[in-house]
Amino acid sequence: MEFSSKLIEKAVDEMSQLPGIGKRTALRLVLHLLKQPKEQTGFLSQALLNMREDIKFCENCHNISDTKVCEICANTARNHQTICVVEDIRDVMAIENTGQYRGIYHVLGGKISPIEGVGPSQLNISTLVEKVKSGKVIEIIFALSSTMEGDTTNFYIYKQIADSEIIISTIARGISVGDELEYADEITLGRSILHRVPFEKTFKNN
Amino acid sequence: MEFSSKLIEKAVDEMSQLPGIGKRTALRLVLHLLKQPKEQTGFLSQALLNMREDIKFCENCHNISDTKVCEICANTARNHQTICVVEDIRDVMAIENTGQYRGIYHVLGGKISPIEGVGPSQLNISTLVEKVKSGKVIEIIFALSSTMEGDTTNFYIYKQIADSEIIISTIARGISVGDELEYADEITLGRSILHRVPFEKTFKNN
Repeated sequence: MEFSSKLIEKAVDEMSQLPGIGKRTALRLVLHLLKQPKEQTGFLSQALLNMREDIKFCENCHNISDTKVCEICANTARNHQTICVVEDIRDVMAIENTGQYRGIYHVLGGKISPIEGVGPSQLNISTLVEKVKSGKVIEIIFALSSTMEGDTTNFYIYKQIADSEIIISTIARGISVGDELEYADEITLGRSILHRVPFEKTFKNN
Repeated sequence: MEFSSKLIEKAVDEMSQLPGIGKRTALRLVLHLLKQPKEQTGFLSQALLNMREDIKFCENCHNISDTKVCEICANTARNHQTICVVEDIRDVMAIENTGQYRGIYHVLGGKISPIEGVGPSQLNISTLVEKVKSGKVIEIIFALSSTMEGDTTNFYIYKQIADSEIIISTIARGISVGDELEYADEITLGRSILHRVPFEKTFKNN
């Protein structure tokens, strides 16, 4: 792509480094900003800069937070003996939205992925193992996505804490609510039969 | 969506004001920036700010440019008596990429669209009419998109310059190269039969 202006070219170059944004989309976004009042670009740039400069991570669970300890960890009404291990802040938000979980979280910051060059040392794994070894934890719930990377990460952590006397569980895999059986893949369907639950549970818990 | 950090919330809010970017995509982009070095966010913000503050429009054709007169208008080797009327900079880039056009452009900055509240006075129409009245122009080529808004804009301009003794043309509408006839809509197919061209032209010009 040849641009008639270096300024546009630079803006498009930077924009298109974001994931899922190609040069064409970047140009569309940049031209949109040009049609809007100057303040909008100012607000956007400032919000991004402030976010990147001043963001903090909770000392305890590594969740993104504006304070040293995040709201969830600071909440004494929650069960601090149950830790749900998740990949990032989006998973915390998703589980919080269900309203079904009253324990705390541990945010790993990613999954072990040799393809993307992410090893265990880049993730918040050691602090999790320390927490388990401290003896204050009763249950660990793995809530990573059900992919090869997720399973690898689960297993890597499991091996380090398997000798502790705590309950280690993963979230249930099975048929999604509203799904038709005939379209479910066989692994999911197979697991959902193996891990069947007493029928009464389905209406008692909800 | 509830965020654990006001900084993230603000960044997501600003990001999601861009066209085609919802809250979820905005959050994904913002989390991506958080994982990258701080400089990347700095470069992005600065590029956007510089672009918005310092961008200039060519005095002659209203194309985006870093100089008072854009490269195309400043190029004396081009035919300044033929003006191609386009909607925005992307159309200039698209036509330049074909390498088939040696005239200059006139960028309207949009199309007349009552639904989006864009009237003729918000577009660069008066300067185009002046150019035509000055008598230095021999041909005007309308290259707006073939939509109701595009046709309206073409017609609005046409009415103001129809009494000038210049050639007024539009780019050809027809079957795209590589398209199967059976999937073409009937209006396009109909036009392409009405406006058929001598067969020799198809291999002489290319």
